[in-house]
Amino acid sequence: MKRILPALVVAGGLLLPAVGMAEDGGVTPGQFTANNVWMMLCAGLVFIMHLGFATLESGLTRAKNTTNILFKNTFIISIGILTYALVGFNLMYPGDFNGIFGFAGFGLAAGYDAAANTPAYADGGYTYWTDFLFQAMFAATAATIVSGAVAERIKLSSFMIFATIFVAVVYTIAGSWKWGGGWLDAAGFYDFAGSTLVHSVGGWGALAGVLLLGPRLGKYVNGKMNPIPGSSLPAATIGVFLLWLGWFGFNGGSVLSADPGATSFTLVTTCLAAAAGCVAAMATSWFRFSKPDLSMSLNGILAGLVGITAGADTVTITGAVIIGLAAGVLVVFSVMFFDRVKIDDPVGAISVHLVCGIWGTLAVGIFSTNPEHTLGAQALGIAAYGGFTFVSALAIFFVLKMTLGIRVSEEEELEGLDLGEHGQHAYDLATGPGWLEQQTGATARVARAPHTTLATSENA
Amino acid sequence: MKRILPALVVAGGLLLPAVGMAEDGGVTPGQFTANNVWMMLCAGLVFIMHLGFATLESGLTRAKNTTNILFKNTFIISIGILTYALVGFNLMYPGDFNGIFGFAGFGLAAGYDAAANTPAYADGGYTYWTDFLFQAMFAATAATIVSGAVAERIKLSSFMIFATIFVAVVYTIAGSWKWGGGWLDAAGFYDFAGSTLVHSVGGWGALAGVLLLGPRLGKYVNGKMNPIPGSSLPAATIGVFLLWLGWFGFNGGSVLSADPGATSFTLVTTCLAAAAGCVAAMATSWFRFSKPDLSMSLNGILAGLVGITAGADTVTITGAVIIGLAAGVLVVFSVMFFDRVKIDDPVGAISVHLVCGIWGTLAVGIFSTNPEHTLGAQALGIAAYGGFTFVSALAIFFVLKMTLGIRVSEEEELEGLDLGEHGQHAYDLATGPGWLEQQTGATARVARAPHTTLATSENA
Amino acid sequence: MKRILPALVVAGGLLLPAVGMAEDGGVTPGQFTANNVWMMLCAGLVFIMHLGFATLESGLTRAKNTTNILFKNTFIISIGILTYALVGFNLMYPGDFNGIFGFAGFGLAAGYDAAANTPAYADGGYTYWTDFLFQAMFAATAATIVSGAVAERIKLSSFMIFATIFVAVVYTIAGSWKWGGGWLDAAGFYDFAGSTLVHSVGGWGALAGVLLLGPRLGKYVNGKMNPIPGSSLPAATIGVFLLWLGWFGFNGGSVLSADPGATSFTLVTTCLAAAAGCVAAMATSWFRFSKPDLSMSLNGILAGLVGITAGADTVTITGAVIIGLAAGVLVVFSVMFFDRVKIDDPVGAISVHLVCGIWGTLAVGIFSTNPEHTLGAQALGIAAYGGFTFVSALAIFFVLKMTLGIRVSEEEELEGLDLGEHGQHAYDLATGPGWLEQQTGATARVARAPHTTLATSENA
Repeated sequence: MKRILPALVVAGGLLLPAVGMAEDGGVTPGQFTANNVWMMLCAGLVFIMHLGFATLESGLTRAKNTTNILFKNTFIISIGILTYALVGFNLMYPGDFNGIFGFAGFGLAAGYDAAANTPAYADGGYTYWTDFLFQAMFAATAATIVSGAVAERIKLSSFMIFATIFVAVVYTIAGSWKWGGGWLDAAGFYDFAGSTLVHSVGGWGALAGVLLLGPRLGKYVNGKMNPIPGSSLPAATIGVFLLWLGWFGFNGGSVLSADPGATSFTLVTTCLAAAAGCVAAMATSWFRFSKPDLSMSLNGILAGLVGITAGADTVTITGAVIIGLAAGVLVVFSVMFFDRVKIDDPVGAISVHLVCGIWGTLAVGIFSTNPEHTLGAQALGIAAYGGFTFVSALAIFFVLKMTLGIRVSEEEELEGLDLGEHGQHAYDLATGPGWLEQQTGATARVARAPHTTLATSENA
Repeated sequence: MKRILPALVVAGGLLLPAVGMAEDGGVTPGQFTANNVWMMLCAGLVFIMHLGFATLESGLTRAKNTTNILFKNTFIISIGILTYALVGFNLMYPGDFNGIFGFAGFGLAAGYDAAANTPAYADGGYTYWTDFLFQAMFAATAATIVSGAVAERIKLSSFMIFATIFVAVVYTIAGSWKWGGGWLDAAGFYDFAGSTLVHSVGGWGALAGVLLLGPRLGKYVNGKMNPIPGSSLPAATIGVFLLWLGWFGFNGGSVLSADPGATSFTLVTTCLAAAAGCVAAMATSWFRFSKPDLSMSLNGILAGLVGITAGADTVTITGAVIIGLAAGVLVVFSVMFFDRVKIDDPVGAISVHLVCGIWGTLAVGIFSTNPEHTLGAQALGIAAYGGFTFVSALAIFFVLKMTLGIRVSEEEELEGLDLGEHGQHAYDLATGPGWLEQQTGATARVARAPHTTLATSENA
Repeated sequence: MKRILPALVVAGGLLLPAVGMAEDGGVTPGQFTANNVWMMLCAGLVFIMHLGFATLESGLTRAKNTTNILFKNTFIISIGILTYALVGFNLMYPGDFNGIFGFAGFGLAAGYDAAANTPAYADGGYTYWTDFLFQAMFAATAATIVSGAVAERIKLSSFMIFATIFVAVVYTIAGSWKWGGGWLDAAGFYDFAGSTLVHSVGGWGALAGVLLLGPRLGKYVNGKMNPIPGSSLPAATIGVFLLWLGWFGFNGGSVLSADPGATSFTLVTTCLAAAAGCVAAMATSWFRFSKPDLSMSLNGILAGLVGITAGADTVTITGAVIIGLAAGVLVVFSVMFFDRVKIDDPVGAISVHLVCGIWGTLAVGIFSTNPEHTLGAQALGIAAYGGFTFVSALAIFFVLKMTLGIRVSEEEELEGLDLGEHGQHAYDLATGPGWLEQQTGATARVARAPHTTLATSENA
């Protein structure tokens, strides 16, 4: 997903008669327009992943913490876009730099002439603006992954500070190493759409947070693990289907053009891996727990999607199915493993994004049809990203723990963060008139005199 | 968003080598196809805004009125499309007319030869059918805005009559003044995608309805304002994210072509304003109420979106952020203001759509890079739309109040409109077998003879 | 929706100056790219219909069976994609065959050179991979339709076996008769996007299942029909809006190109029929039950959509509205009819998909502008599909009933399939701290010593 592409890659339909194609190997206006339409829609699809994360995470946690989770997800996408415009885009894609750190300056579009209002300023196969928007939607994803793992006990203000730094600085500097053309790109590391650069990065952040926070109250008591069921499996299901849909844009857009062959092949490997992950997790949970588990099956879909992301454009069809199947098995055992070592991750984010992100990145070294992709380079990239982002996240959380604190009080955790942090319950689904009676005594009044008109004072 | 565009505007990628472009300045088939794909997808995105409104409004109101709200939203999109085909499209885009009122006749496609089935009949940069569909999805939006503000006490049949007239006649005649090429277009008024033409128009309708309806029972008692919490913040969150996504099409499609520069620049300003509105509303509510409020934050997103809509293609990046920040602050104080003057708007629609719609329209006069956009022309447009639509809506609601009545009985309001108007509760989330036991005594029967087969009469 | 298209159909914008179009009647690279973008997005839209079905079905059934329904829908899309890759695609589009049965071999892309990794392998107007993906999303739809009708009492494992065979073999062989270029295609039968090939096929499967299963416990007792209200009308509404949106891809993609005229005309007839179906079902239910029914209105939308699907590209605008209106009336009376004859279909799937699918297929013979479409050929197709798929489904369900059994125990049905099949409730929306207190006694401990720090053992 490097920004500057050779013209040959973005010229779609190469096998067809190239009537109307520019002589100089660039793209025709029609192709430029089609590229841009595709990339804008992919940005929209990645955007909707944020709704997917919000509903998934709120569905897999308790109803007393739902407002808090929704608030965090709403905040992350907003602050993510703003900080990416201010610093992130120019940290991640600094242009010529030393391969480790570069910064192209504050704000958008140094090269954009605002006074003349020529927004068509182009950057390869589509516009600068489309490029920014697509990348901004990606950036916010990494912080959102953390949100689910630390849910139900993290202090809101500390999380907001962490997420802002993580999305604006940590993710973007790390991203520059590969997608910005830095040292890992030069070292032959390959990560098509972010099994490592997005998902593992988020997963390492999640692991750091969970280690410093500790488990939720009551999760592990007297050596026994108490399962804490989520509040709404329909919400979780909506979330996973939206994430799957969003992955059409996440992987399909990472082609960085509408090249017909590359985009459509990528969507096929993506969907096959998701489906295989689902079926594998269903079978594994059925075998292990004797009943098929819906939340595991949903995580199986995500596991397959995260797994295929590093090599969606370059593995074979059979490879894609194997990657998905393995991810679906892996995620079930990983969830069980983290529970055994008392690392409490309410939504399974570490298993889905970190463990399957690593698996998918290694899988490129196994199933890629490109002989330049090697297990060694993949392992180097995994180690480099793991080291940098885990240490960075740990450092940020540690400073916050020493200063503001990162965990809510025991009372607040029991009562729920919705009341403690926001003073708002997320649900009030009673269908009777109960609330109004208690507030105003109105029903009693109606019962006494059911046909009186409304008091004027209430109906001005 | 005028329908007939100069060819230069719709020709994408002007800065690139124009190989393959038609010599006469028109669009190539490839560009025509790309334009059409983009506009159809934008129509789909605006369509999904109606689901956004449905979930947002039902989430911010009580569970006893949810069926009623969903019914209204389902009705509006349906009647909106049908009436737009019958009269609306030809009222809003009458072609040559006196600038105030024109009508091109009943039904679709006077110029369409049904017998020959040549649906490719083109209208500028894409087909006639795409044009109709995109505009029809817009039209229904204005009436939907009213729905939220009058929720929880308006009589269903009266609302349905109001909404039908409002979407078919009021919105469309008003729309012709600018987008149909009427007198306000000639006067230099600018409204790119409808801060005024859609959102304020809906907001004025909402204000008229609320003034004639009065507040909900129990909202303002003895000089005290009782907050009435919504039933489902997850539903509200789903709604706002879907609306944000839909705005990709609402603003992006208002370019009326797939022009790469204009569409992508528009999406960036749109998303920056939404994000800024969110962060500003979060901060404002945190400061004012000492806790950050999720529903205010969600309304902050909508405030930013409504605010940027009038000038999304023409303001600077910095201007977009400022417009969003201001809208996010404004919406919080506006909600508080309307509560203080006892104008009861359950979902904050008047603050979001009317107040921020006015702000966004004025902001064009401040932040536009086009020197022809002036505060004076913008104020003229705001006043003209306000006068016409507020008076029209007031008149319709007044006639309905004098005839059918516009408010449900006090008993029905207390019991909930779901039972009163539809006889259907929206939720029954008890997971036990309770209902069936009470209905049939089946459990008792099972308890007596758990291994008997099912009665043949039940299992034919 | 035949795969191999004459070049003239896929060349968009025929009425415009054809500058840049290939001389040999093929498509230009720009058009190929645009076609491919459109078809990939249509595949995404059809994908999201599976979320629509999941939420619709879970909303219209009881909360104690919600996990089970979501699990089934998650399984179907996953196994559907996998089996379509393994055998389905090559059964449905076998190339040259005897018109009744053909098989092009196992797996994807016999013609695809994996070693050379040239994924641009093209098949008419877009790539082979796009073709597979779009068709795979369709295939899974037919099985999903069955899911709703047999909900709340079918044994999970048996349903999974049925669905796998139905989607992989029955649907695909039947599909080859028309869309694969088989005998019904030769006989002049027309079904643009699947009123019969998808919806009736699913509906026949549903009818077979319901007949062998019998009604839910307590539905028909002592000659009386007990309505069993759904758990969540918001979920049902989300489902129907997502299905409507998905139909943009279902019908719009069935053009099999981005041809501007054909795609946009199709979207307009589709949306008009949906809107007309909604309004007609609202009016009919209001008239029959004296209150307007939301779930009937939602089914009216689906009825209109299913009805228009067979002729969306070929009927007139007026015809589309009439088809939708009739479908909206029909679905209400059909639901009442099936209840009268004690065929218990919890979500109305048989009425929506089978009855309105037949209506829509016949309507092509009435409203098509193509004189080659005749009522006789349409009736032949309906009979052939009905005979084959009903008998096939009945046979599969019968074998399963004789072996594994197809119905859960009476106890499990009363308790709910969520506990019986999955051991997981779908909802736990209590916002208080109740659960944790019962599990761990933590609150009691807090009450005694509210300011003690967390036990180290819980917070490692």
